[in-house]
Amino acid sequence: MIPCPIADSDSVWEVLPEANRRVMDALDYFIVENVRSARRFLSKAGIARPIGELEFVELNEHTTSPSDVEKMLKPLLEGRSAGVISEAGVPGVADPGADIVALAHRYGVRVVPLVGPSSILMVMMASGQNGQSFSFVGYLPVKELDRSRAVRNLERRAQQEHQAQIFIEAPYRNRKLFEMLVATLSPKMRLTVAADITAPDELIKTLTVEQWRKAGVPNIEKRPTIFVLGI
Amino acid sequence: MIPCPIADSDSVWEVLPEANRRVMDALDYFIVENVRSARRFLSKAGIARPIGELEFVELNEHTTSPSDVEKMLKPLLEGRSAGVISEAGVPGVADPGADIVALAHRYGVRVVPLVGPSSILMVMMASGQNGQSFSFVGYLPVKELDRSRAVRNLERRAQQEHQAQIFIEAPYRNRKLFEMLVATLSPKMRLTVAADITAPDELIKTLTVEQWRKAGVPNIEKRPTIFVLGI
Repeated sequence: MIPCPIADSDSVWEVLPEANRRVMDALDYFIVENVRSARRFLSKAGIARPIGELEFVELNEHTTSPSDVEKMLKPLLEGRSAGVISEAGVPGVADPGADIVALAHRYGVRVVPLVGPSSILMVMMASGQNGQSFSFVGYLPVKELDRSRAVRNLERRAQQEHQAQIFIEAPYRNRKLFEMLVATLSPKMRLTVAADITAPDELIKTLTVEQWRKAGVPNIEKRPTIFVLGI
Repeated sequence: MIPCPIADSDSVWEVLPEANRRVMDALDYFIVENVRSARRFLSKAGIARPIGELEFVELNEHTTSPSDVEKMLKPLLEGRSAGVISEAGVPGVADPGADIVALAHRYGVRVVPLVGPSSILMVMMASGQNGQSFSFVGYLPVKELDRSRAVRNLERRAQQEHQAQIFIEAPYRNRKLFEMLVATLSPKMRLTVAADITAPDELIKTLTVEQWRKAGVPNIEKRPTIFVLGI
């Protein structure tokens, strides 16, 4: 499980430990979320082998069927190793990478995670929200009624279980979601807004809903953003 | 927020990116979970300043009151920077570090997370459990009845919300917890057992409860272990 940088501006070896290089240099088979960005990452990383000699297969929930995933694993049953690379950050979390890992476990193939940047984890580290109990729930529903209900449920869980609730949105809808949150959440709840983690203009800010109402909309327009709700 | 290695055997710069060094070199004030292990970490890392010239304060939920935390933040309000270091892995997650971060946000102090190893995140990457929705709930209750109820609730949430449930135990009770899980969980549930993440004898194994019953107790006796429950 090979992490890659989150932000385009990140230089590869600024956010990845040198030890990852040994693993990356040794592999010639990669299961990736997006072939083009995986090639670009490996090339920027300056791995030992020429990129043209490497084999890539794409694991993407829009294009890959369960039998395709079985096929991808086959070389591993014959003793080959594979690197799994996500579009950004760590594979297997908030991406389709977990499908191949589940299959690997079913067949007794060893899975080794490497250290790298995860925006979810880094936001939790820097949010001041409850790091003893937290939940990542992915995207909220798009339809307005479902979305309101989902936000009420997150708020209830944050209050009753003191569990921080982490969620994300498609970047072009960030502003709308923020406005809805600030309008409907109870004023004392703490809301973290975090954008462009690891990039030079990284934003991580935790305020109460009441304080956000005064502070106004932060600069999250079309920026990859993570929200954390807590008491 | 300065991560450190998880396993004693890890060489520092094998699991941390080189860019962290610049930040660590620049700081002379550290808020740490344990002074002794923080000193050892910085010394192994070979930072620029002599360790004896650095200032350390201990933030530990057993020894630190809210007014102590206020005092720790004071230098930051006067323009100084602080590094936050946990006993192992990333600070702010499953440790008391979040207290100082919450206060920093309240006073408008900028918080910057660095990349490093988190056993919770790395287990999620390599478990094959649902990386689109997962929850870390910390330690289970110790009393038997409360514990059974907690496990039933985790199982229900995993089933109804397809949310992976991550939890930990004091190492000397790992075996007992494992046996209780395997005896009481429904046979089709998937259970990940992960121990000594990043160490040479790292174990990460996901099997159904049914399969675990046949496979028997894995080698988790007194090893730091993370459990993940999913469907």
